[in-house]
Amino acid sequence: MAFGDIDRLAISTIRLLAVDQVSKANSGHPGAPLGLAPAAHVLFSQMRMNPKNPDWINRDRFVLSNGHAVALLYSMLHLTGYDFSIDDLKSFRQLGSKCPGHPEFELPGVEVTTGPLGQGVTNAVGLAIAQANLAATYNKPGFTLSDNYTYVFLGDGCLEEGISSEASSLAGHLQLGNLICVYDDNSITIDGATEVSFDEDVAKRYEAYGWEVLYVEDGNTDLDAIANAIAQAKKSHNKPTLIKMKTTIGYGSLNAGDHSVHGSPLKADDVKQLKTKFGFNPDKSFVVPQEVYDFYQAKILNPGVEAEKKWNQLFAQYQQKFPEVGAELKRRLAGQLPAGWEKVLPTYTPSDSALATRKLSEMVLDKICDELPELLGGSADLTPSNLTRAKDAEDFQPPANKLGSYAGRYIRYGIREHAMGAIMNGISAYGAHYKVYSGTFLNFVSYAAGAVRLSALSGHPVIWVATHDSIGVGEDGPTHEPIETLAHFRALPNMHVWRPADGNETSAAYKVAIESTTTPSIIALTRQNLPQLEGSSLEKAAKGGYILKDATNPDIVIVATGSEVSLSVDAAKILADKGLNARVVSLPDEFTFDHQSEEYKLSVLPDGVPIMSVEVLTSFGWKKYAHQSFGLNRFGASGKAPEVFKYFDFVPEGVVSRAEKTIAFYKGKDLISPIRSAF
Amino acid sequence: MAFGDIDRLAISTIRLLAVDQVSKANSGHPGAPLGLAPAAHVLFSQMRMNPKNPDWINRDRFVLSNGHAVALLYSMLHLTGYDFSIDDLKSFRQLGSKCPGHPEFELPGVEVTTGPLGQGVTNAVGLAIAQANLAATYNKPGFTLSDNYTYVFLGDGCLEEGISSEASSLAGHLQLGNLICVYDDNSITIDGATEVSFDEDVAKRYEAYGWEVLYVEDGNTDLDAIANAIAQAKKSHNKPTLIKMKTTIGYGSLNAGDHSVHGSPLKADDVKQLKTKFGFNPDKSFVVPQEVYDFYQAKILNPGVEAEKKWNQLFAQYQQKFPEVGAELKRRLAGQLPAGWEKVLPTYTPSDSALATRKLSEMVLDKICDELPELLGGSADLTPSNLTRAKDAEDFQPPANKLGSYAGRYIRYGIREHAMGAIMNGISAYGAHYKVYSGTFLNFVSYAAGAVRLSALSGHPVIWVATHDSIGVGEDGPTHEPIETLAHFRALPNMHVWRPADGNETSAAYKVAIESTTTPSIIALTRQNLPQLEGSSLEKAAKGGYILKDATNPDIVIVATGSEVSLSVDAAKILADKGLNARVVSLPDEFTFDHQSEEYKLSVLPDGVPIMSVEVLTSFGWKKYAHQSFGLNRFGASGKAPEVFKYFDFVPEGVVSRAEKTIAFYKGKDLISPIRSAF
Repeated sequence: MAFGDIDRLAISTIRLLAVDQVSKANSGHPGAPLGLAPAAHVLFSQMRMNPKNPDWINRDRFVLSNGHAVALLYSMLHLTGYDFSIDDLKSFRQLGSKCPGHPEFELPGVEVTTGPLGQGVTNAVGLAIAQANLAATYNKPGFTLSDNYTYVFLGDGCLEEGISSEASSLAGHLQLGNLICVYDDNSITIDGATEVSFDEDVAKRYEAYGWEVLYVEDGNTDLDAIANAIAQAKKSHNKPTLIKMKTTIGYGSLNAGDHSVHGSPLKADDVKQLKTKFGFNPDKSFVVPQEVYDFYQAKILNPGVEAEKKWNQLFAQYQQKFPEVGAELKRRLAGQLPAGWEKVLPTYTPSDSALATRKLSEMVLDKICDELPELLGGSADLTPSNLTRAKDAEDFQPPANKLGSYAGRYIRYGIREHAMGAIMNGISAYGAHYKVYSGTFLNFVSYAAGAVRLSALSGHPVIWVATHDSIGVGEDGPTHEPIETLAHFRALPNMHVWRPADGNETSAAYKVAIESTTTPSIIALTRQNLPQLEGSSLEKAAKGGYILKDATNPDIVIVATGSEVSLSVDAAKILADKGLNARVVSLPDEFTFDHQSEEYKLSVLPDGVPIMSVEVLTSFGWKKYAHQSFGLNRFGASGKAPEVFKYFDFVPEGVVSRAEKTIAFYKGKDLISPIRSAF
Repeated sequence: MAFGDIDRLAISTIRLLAVDQVSKANSGHPGAPLGLAPAAHVLFSQMRMNPKNPDWINRDRFVLSNGHAVALLYSMLHLTGYDFSIDDLKSFRQLGSKCPGHPEFELPGVEVTTGPLGQGVTNAVGLAIAQANLAATYNKPGFTLSDNYTYVFLGDGCLEEGISSEASSLAGHLQLGNLICVYDDNSITIDGATEVSFDEDVAKRYEAYGWEVLYVEDGNTDLDAIANAIAQAKKSHNKPTLIKMKTTIGYGSLNAGDHSVHGSPLKADDVKQLKTKFGFNPDKSFVVPQEVYDFYQAKILNPGVEAEKKWNQLFAQYQQKFPEVGAELKRRLAGQLPAGWEKVLPTYTPSDSALATRKLSEMVLDKICDELPELLGGSADLTPSNLTRAKDAEDFQPPANKLGSYAGRYIRYGIREHAMGAIMNGISAYGAHYKVYSGTFLNFVSYAAGAVRLSALSGHPVIWVATHDSIGVGEDGPTHEPIETLAHFRALPNMHVWRPADGNETSAAYKVAIESTTTPSIIALTRQNLPQLEGSSLEKAAKGGYILKDATNPDIVIVATGSEVSLSVDAAKILADKGLNARVVSLPDEFTFDHQSEEYKLSVLPDGVPIMSVEVLTSFGWKKYAHQSFGLNRFGASGKAPEVFKYFDFVPEGVVSRAEKTIAFYKGKDLISPIRSAF
C-alpha cells in the first residue's frame, strides 16, 4: 500500500471522532484510540468485510481486546459504513445508546464483547480455531469457502492477565497462522509506567509460545511499517503473529505518554490544540470530511460488497457440486439444527443400570457427535474423568504434529479453564452455528468465572460439562468439592445450571442446551453412580422442574437435584412407612423452571405445604423454592464418598429427620408457596 | 553434598511410602511422587526447618504446587520428624485422617493448601514477598533475622494455568531471588503426552520473565545434578529460579512414563516388582529402615532444632539492642494487633460530607497504615480508582529499579487479579501476622475466584478492597457492573462480604476484617457518593446487621446494603407520609450477622412483619433474610449512574411502590421471620 494525505486525514478523523465521543460523554478512554488510530486505519484498509452485512461468514474478524478503547472502534465502524450514525457516536456511553461503554457482541461489526481484560484475545483464538475447522471441513479444491483472518488489538493489560497466557500458549501449539495480534506497546497502564509491574520481555515470551513476533517501532506515524508487518504476518501460515508496535498513548495530546490520558476525557483546551494540530477546526466536533467517507467506501465498503457477492456465487456452485455438505453448511449458516436430531438422545427406564451422570453424558455425546457436525468439544486435560470425548472423535490439531487435524472436533485445551471458557465464546461467536462444549471438574469452572460471565452477558450458548459435582468426589477432598459453585452460576442472569438426577434428565439437559441459541449451560454431573429413576422422563425434565413422585395430600414437598433426588425418594419411602406423605420434586435447572408458567410452577410447588430442599452444596439461594433447606454450608472432606455423605448426614435418615422437623415446625401455619411474589 | 547408599535407600523409602499410601487408600496419585522423590530428598536434606516447631518464622518454606503428589509430602513430613505418624500415613485419604487427599494449610509442615493447579507456586510468590519485606523491615547489621528461601515443586499443570504466568511475571519483575521452583518436567498430563496441548518452550518463557533457568537432565537418579542446581539457584540473588528437571512419571513402575500412573493406584503386582526392584520386601508395606529415620534426624531435625535455638538467641539480643522494633516484631510473631489500634478508625455524623465508600476506605487506610506495620496493600493496576494507596506508602519494589524498596508496603500487582488473590494467601500464610489487602473492581474479584475460595478454605484473613460495586459504575456498562458477585461470595463458607452504607460502616468493615484471624473479607465499595447516615455507628455495623431507623409497629421492614440503605431511608420517609411505618435495617455483612444470637437477629428481623430486601444486584439468596426482594436480575447498562439507577427503578418511588405491594400481599397473613429455622 502507498499511503498519502488521505490516509493521514482519515487517521486524524478517527482520532478526533474518538476524542469527541469521550468529551461529549465526559467519560471514557481517549488515550488508546489516539495511539491506535493509525494501526486501525491501516488494518481496516486491507481487511475483507462487508459493513452492509456484518454477519457474512468469510469476513475478516477484528477484536478490540483492550475494549476500553471502544471509541476507536465506533469511529471505525461509522466511517467504514456499518450501521452506526454520527448521532450514535454522539450518544456514546449514554443510557439506551447504540454506543455503550465497552464493545458488546450484539452490535453490528462488534465480534465479541470486550472490556474485561484478556478476554478478547482469547475469544480471538476461538474465532481462529473455528475458521480453521470450518475451512478444513468444507473447503474443496477450487472452493475456498473459508479463509478469513482474525485480527486483534491488545494492550499491556491483556498481556498481563493469565487468561491470555493460557490462550497464547495453546494458539502457538495449534499453529494458528490465521491469527494476527497487534500489541499496543505504549508502556502505560492505569498505575503509571509499565515498569512498576511489567518489565518482562513480551516478544521473547511469545516466541517461546511458538509465535511469530514482528516489530513496528513507530506506530504513531509509520504507516508503511504497520502495513508491512500485517502483510508479513499474513504469510505466517503455521504460526500466530504478535506485532509489537510502539505507540504513544494519547498521541497529540498535551499529556501524551502519561497515564492521565488513559481513562479520563481530555481537557477542553487540550482538545482544541489537538484539533488545530491535526488541521481541523478547533471549535467543531464530530467532523468527518467527505473525502474520508469516500475513501473508506472505495477502499473497504465497495470491495467488501463485491467480495461477498463473489463468495455467494462460489457457495451456490459449491452447493450444486457438493449437495450433501453444501446443504449441511447452508443449514449451519442459517442457524438450524438437523431435523429430528434429538431422536438419538438416549432414554431410560428404572430397570436400566445405575450409572454416573458423567457416564450418561458420555453416552449422549457418543450419540450426538455424528448427528451434529457443528459439535466441537474438548476438556481442560480431564478427558478420562470428564468423559467428554466421543468414541470416534478426532483431535483438533495442526496437521503438522500428526496428532489429528483441523477437521478434528475434539480440542485438547490443556489445564487452562479460563482460556477454555473464552475460546468457547469465540468459537460460538464465529457464526457457523458451532455447538461448543468443554469438560472440567465443576469446582474448576470457577477458574473461568470471568469467561462464563461473558458467555451469559453475550448470549453464547456454550456448554460446560462439569463433572465431579459434589462431595461425591470423595478422596480428593475439599479443594475439589464444590460448595458455592452452583449458587454462583445460578445467580448469574441468563444461565442454565443443570444438575440431572439420572439418564433421562441428562438427555434433557443436553436437549435444552443444544437447542439454546442465547443461553449458556453448565451441566453438573456426578462422579458416582445414580439409579435410573421411576417417574423421570426427558420431556418432564426439559421443563426444568417437575413432580417425580407424587403423594396424595402431601405433608411435605421435598425438592432436590442430581444425586439428592434418589436420596429423597428413599427418604420419602421411609416417611411413608411413618405415615407421612412426601412429594418428591426434581428441579434440574432453575433457569428453565423459572420460565414455565406460574400455574405450572405452583402445580409443582404449591401453597399450603411445607417445601424442603435437599442439595449437598450450599443452601444459599434455595429459599427461592423452599421454606427450609438441607444443604452443606461448610467445606467438604476427604474420604470415601459414601462415608463423606454419611458424615454430613446426607443419607435417607438424615433427610427423614429434617423432613419431620420441617413438618412439625410449619404445622398449622398458613403457608404460601415461595413461587408467589408480591411484585 | 556427597551422596551415597543411605541417600538411595532414603529415596526408595520415600517412593514406597507414597506408593503404599495410595495403594492402601486405593485412591491417589503415585506417578509424581515416584518421579519426584529424589528431588524431595535432596531438597529437604539442605533445607533449614525445625519439624518440632513448624511455625518457626525463619524456616525455609516448601510448597507442593502439584498438590496431587501429596503422598510424597506426607512421606517427607513423616520421615523428617513432623507430627505425622506411620498410622497417619496409613489413613491417607480416609475420612477424619490427618492425611487428606490434598495438602491442607492447617497441617504441620504444610505451608499452603494446594491441589487446584497454579495456586501453590503463586502462594510461593507471596511467601517470598513476605520474606523480602520482613527482612528489609527488621534485619539489621549482624542481625539477619530473616533469610529463608521458598522452594516449590510444580508440574506441567501449574505452568499451563494462567495464574502462574501472572505470578511468574510479577516475581521476575520483583527480582525475588529467594524463590526457587523445581519444575517436574515429565511430559505427561492426564490427557496423555504434553505434546497434545503444551509444547511451548518453558525455559525461554521463564527467561523472558527475568528468571534464572537451570537444568537437571536426569531427575530420576542424578542427585548431584539436583544438589548443584539448588546450590546455584541459591546464589541467584536478584532473580527467581526455575530448575527444569526431567523426570519419569511413575519411575520404577511397569507403566513408568505413561499417563496411566498419574492418578490411579498401581496394580498389586506392579507394587511388588517395584519393591523388589528397590531392594525392599515385596510383601511388606509402610516400611522405613531405622537408618533412614536416623539419617533424617541427623541431617534435618537436629540441625533444625539447633538453628532455631540460635535464632531465638539472636532475636533475644535483637530485642535488647532494638527495643522498639524488637517489641513490634515480637508482637507480630505472637499474632497480636497493637493495643487500641482501632481508635484511629474514623467515625462520622450525618452532618459530615457525602462521600463514596471507596473514598472512605482510603481515609481508613491512610489512618491505619502507620498504626499497623503489618499492613501490606496493593492493587491490580487500579490504584487511582480503588484508592488503595495510603498517602505515605512506599512501593514494594526491588531495590535495583529505584521505584521503591523491599521495605515498601504497597504492591503494584499489575493487571493480575488471580495471582493477586493467591499472592495475598501466601503473604498471609507466611506467619508474621501480615494483614494483606488489595484492590480491584468488585466485578473482577471473580477473575480470582479460585484464589478467593482457597482463602476461605484455608482461613487466610486477607482483604479485598472491591470498588465500583454496582450499576453505580455508570458509563463503563454491563461488562463492569457486578450482578452475581456478592451472591457468589456470600455462598462461600467462611467469607465476610461487606457492603458498607457510609463512613461508620466502612470503618466497621475494616475493624472486623483486620481483627479477623481466620476469615477473609471482601469489602464492596461504591464509586459514587453516599450520605453519612443518621442511626449508623461503627459498633452497630460491627454486628453485621442492625436497625438503622426504627418505626413503631412497622408495617414493613426494609433490609438493604450499601448504596441502597440511604435509598431505603428516603423511601421510608415517603411511606411515612402515606401513613405506612417502615423500619430500615442495614445488613452490611451477612457472615457477621449470621454469627449473632438468634435473639438479636430476631430483634432486627422479627416475626409478624413483611420484610423486603433492597439491593441493586441479583436478589438470589436474599430470601434468607426477607420475604420479598427488590433486586436486579439481569445485566446492567451503560449510562450516567443516576440515569441507570432510575432506569431500573432504584429510586425512592420504586422502593415505595414495591413496599406497598409487599404490605398488601402479606396483609392478614401469619408471617414467620426468615431467621427462624425448623432445624
